[in-house]
Amino acid sequence: MNYRIVFQTLGKILLVEATLIVLPLMISLIYHETEMIVPFITTSGILCICGFLLVKLIKPNNANLFPKEAFAIVSLSWILVSLFGCLPYIFSGVVNNFFDALFESVSGFSTTGATVLSDVENLSKGLLFWRSFSQWLGGMGILVFVLAILPNVDPRSMYILKAESPGPKVGKLVSKVKVTAIILYLIYIVLTLTLTILLKIAGLPWFDSVVHALSVAGTGGFSIKNSSIMAYQNIPAEIIIAIFMLFFAINFNLYYFILIGQGKQILKNEEFRFFVIIVVISTLIVAINIMNLYGNFGNSLHHAIFQVASIISTTGLTTTDFNIWPSLSKWILIILMITGGCAGSTCGGIKLSRVIILGKTIKNEIKYSLHPNQVITTKFEQKRVEEDVLRGVVSFIIAYFFIVLLGTLIISIENVDLLSSLTSVLTCISNVGPGFNLVGPTENFAFFSNFSKLILSIIMLAGRLEIFPILVLFTPRLWKKA
Amino acid sequence: MNYRIVFQTLGKILLVEATLIVLPLMISLIYHETEMIVPFITTSGILCICGFLLVKLIKPNNANLFPKEAFAIVSLSWILVSLFGCLPYIFSGVVNNFFDALFESVSGFSTTGATVLSDVENLSKGLLFWRSFSQWLGGMGILVFVLAILPNVDPRSMYILKAESPGPKVGKLVSKVKVTAIILYLIYIVLTLTLTILLKIAGLPWFDSVVHALSVAGTGGFSIKNSSIMAYQNIPAEIIIAIFMLFFAINFNLYYFILIGQGKQILKNEEFRFFVIIVVISTLIVAINIMNLYGNFGNSLHHAIFQVASIISTTGLTTTDFNIWPSLSKWILIILMITGGCAGSTCGGIKLSRVIILGKTIKNEIKYSLHPNQVITTKFEQKRVEEDVLRGVVSFIIAYFFIVLLGTLIISIENVDLLSSLTSVLTCISNVGPGFNLVGPTENFAFFSNFSKLILSIIMLAGRLEIFPILVLFTPRLWKKA
Repeated sequence: MNYRIVFQTLGKILLVEATLIVLPLMISLIYHETEMIVPFITTSGILCICGFLLVKLIKPNNANLFPKEAFAIVSLSWILVSLFGCLPYIFSGVVNNFFDALFESVSGFSTTGATVLSDVENLSKGLLFWRSFSQWLGGMGILVFVLAILPNVDPRSMYILKAESPGPKVGKLVSKVKVTAIILYLIYIVLTLTLTILLKIAGLPWFDSVVHALSVAGTGGFSIKNSSIMAYQNIPAEIIIAIFMLFFAINFNLYYFILIGQGKQILKNEEFRFFVIIVVISTLIVAINIMNLYGNFGNSLHHAIFQVASIISTTGLTTTDFNIWPSLSKWILIILMITGGCAGSTCGGIKLSRVIILGKTIKNEIKYSLHPNQVITTKFEQKRVEEDVLRGVVSFIIAYFFIVLLGTLIISIENVDLLSSLTSVLTCISNVGPGFNLVGPTENFAFFSNFSKLILSIIMLAGRLEIFPILVLFTPRLWKKA
Repeated sequence: MNYRIVFQTLGKILLVEATLIVLPLMISLIYHETEMIVPFITTSGILCICGFLLVKLIKPNNANLFPKEAFAIVSLSWILVSLFGCLPYIFSGVVNNFFDALFESVSGFSTTGATVLSDVENLSKGLLFWRSFSQWLGGMGILVFVLAILPNVDPRSMYILKAESPGPKVGKLVSKVKVTAIILYLIYIVLTLTLTILLKIAGLPWFDSVVHALSVAGTGGFSIKNSSIMAYQNIPAEIIIAIFMLFFAINFNLYYFILIGQGKQILKNEEFRFFVIIVVISTLIVAINIMNLYGNFGNSLHHAIFQVASIISTTGLTTTDFNIWPSLSKWILIILMITGGCAGSTCGGIKLSRVIILGKTIKNEIKYSLHPNQVITTKFEQKRVEEDVLRGVVSFIIAYFFIVLLGTLIISIENVDLLSSLTSVLTCISNVGPGFNLVGPTENFAFFSNFSKLILSIIMLAGRLEIFPILVLFTPRLWKKA
């Protein structure tokens, strides 16, 4: 591995984080939260020093950047950004335990939204903003952000985009990596601003609108209310958020098609159509299934659509305690938790495009078993699925379930009940937030041991980076000198 | 499809079943159970008439037997054999409900061992024998049995052997299909007789020894005691059964190697080595984890090894109520329930050879993602894993989990708790028997609705036949005339 280029890039990323911390600092200044000035400035200062040292002291011999280096950059930068990102929680005295702070920070950047804080309404506005802002950054990707703002981006940074972006196949929108990154972030910013304004119109205060827009955009799910969105009792706001959660679960390439006047492409998109079908069917089944809990179909439809949108987009905001729902509805939510939404969006999970490709693989296998001599090819989005993409999809799914099982075993050493251990791992690897039983919507993750919190933090990061960048860290092969 | 050859073969299979029913009839005669004579003779008579009609009235135009026909023969014969096999339960008046009888019969032939009968100790000896004998037949395979006893076996019957035998790849032991089938059944019979004699020596009555040997050999798990093996309080018998459950979870090809003097092959066998490692590690973890429930390590080791052997072999006999075990041990049992033992044995689940191939696939994908230009091949048992075998393995796993999720959704319409719905489906598709909570070791499946019992019966058959033979029944492609 080309260590020098890796360390230098990591240095640049820390400097970017140092700059970004200025935003929550400004929020604290606006709201006269003097106690938050030192924590934010200290964090920024430490980041500056570390970043500066890495950038200035290590000069790369060459600019060779291959998949190895890209993987190392992506996984290490997410780990470092999360580690430094937990400092404001510690310096402000909100959290006394390093593992709690790490969990909260990773839950932010990985857009999970699970929390160890039982009373978020007590937090300063600066810190609340930092929590949600980290989800916004994590949603589209920290590295994509860096690629968008840095000058002189090497075309080989494509490997970085590939390693960080969710989905089985990453297509550049335009030939230049940097321009692709800028377009993605522009779409993201416009959608976030629109949501902010709509929430303000619906009656939420400005601060609440901004912060919720940030965490919805990243499909993160951190709220500034202990009882999440249900605290506002604001039906229009809930409907707006439900719609936007679905928007952020759709492949951003589709918005680009609209921008360049090829809006018809959307209807041809297999994954999008599948997404719509899944959302409609799940919502209807859940609405009927929970009807006797909410009196009438209108009410139950409202909660059904919000929860389905929240879970399939892996946001995790709640309008009701779905832990008391009947089993069928709970299982539907668990399955949506696993699948997640579309590739190339800000959501987690295994992504619907992979589900479609797997479904087609089974269909083909049935054909093949009946006619072993036929040549059968799998098509997806009007194109043939190449052997290496298929193998990638399969490996990802297997790795996903392998980590779910291993994680569940480790968490269950604490002897929490089976459903709590399983859904705590599922909700973390798919970056959702709430699970069931002990980690249900009205509960939090504070009761876990430090060891479990560390494991769940690793699982959240692994989920956000689609596992392989984290897995390769454990292979000696990666660390061999070039 | 060549309908005529399919129907004719089905007719022959019914005639074989008509003959086999004579065995439980003889047991009833020996024990003077006059009330069972009519039920068994009627069943046999109906089978004779149906079989005779199919064989005599339908003359095949040609002997063309291709994968299509093989799949149809395998899936339809298992369905028919189970349907006719439930008649003794109905005719004897033990069960009043058709779906209960079907569930019990399918649970037998599929070697699951789940029951809807709350008091088996009240059953006649003839019926108890029929329950366990169906598991013995189902274990090695009904079609393999037919191939072993029928004269003039067509070499193309290999397709039938392939469709019925568990595992990613079926190797003929010798060039002739018929001889392969005979060898397999001879090994099976010798092991079953040995177990019977050992149980007798350990102190069980003759009848109990025979019946338990039959259900252990098929890794079925039907007992003739309401509290399963723990009723005997006989430690030597429990140890003998534990060892034999493990024996029946090993690929039978390995016993053939011993017979032909190539015993060293066993140690080279990757799947066998993996099996030993999994059994040892799981037993140790469980034994330590449950120690404070059983007072000392010796006791807990005894229960740990019995339960691990029972679940990994998908037998399902119990010496203790593992529903009260701590979460870690429960999760280990659930995972073993999913994996099952070795391919080419009588056990269910996804089989360890598939787990190994998947594990290697992930390892290779990591290598590939770091070095996209390298050519990487997966090796298993010293041979290259061909593309179609790998695709078959992957499709099977995906289909397995797809059916688990779909089945769980359907079962949860009844609003049983999440763990009961999940583990009832898991234990049925892997042909284990007991699950957790409402379907735990001390419970039974009687409380389910008829609809759920039908679904679970289909899932048990799908699991035993490794899914695809049942799945293809639902494709119009299969039913097209040749």
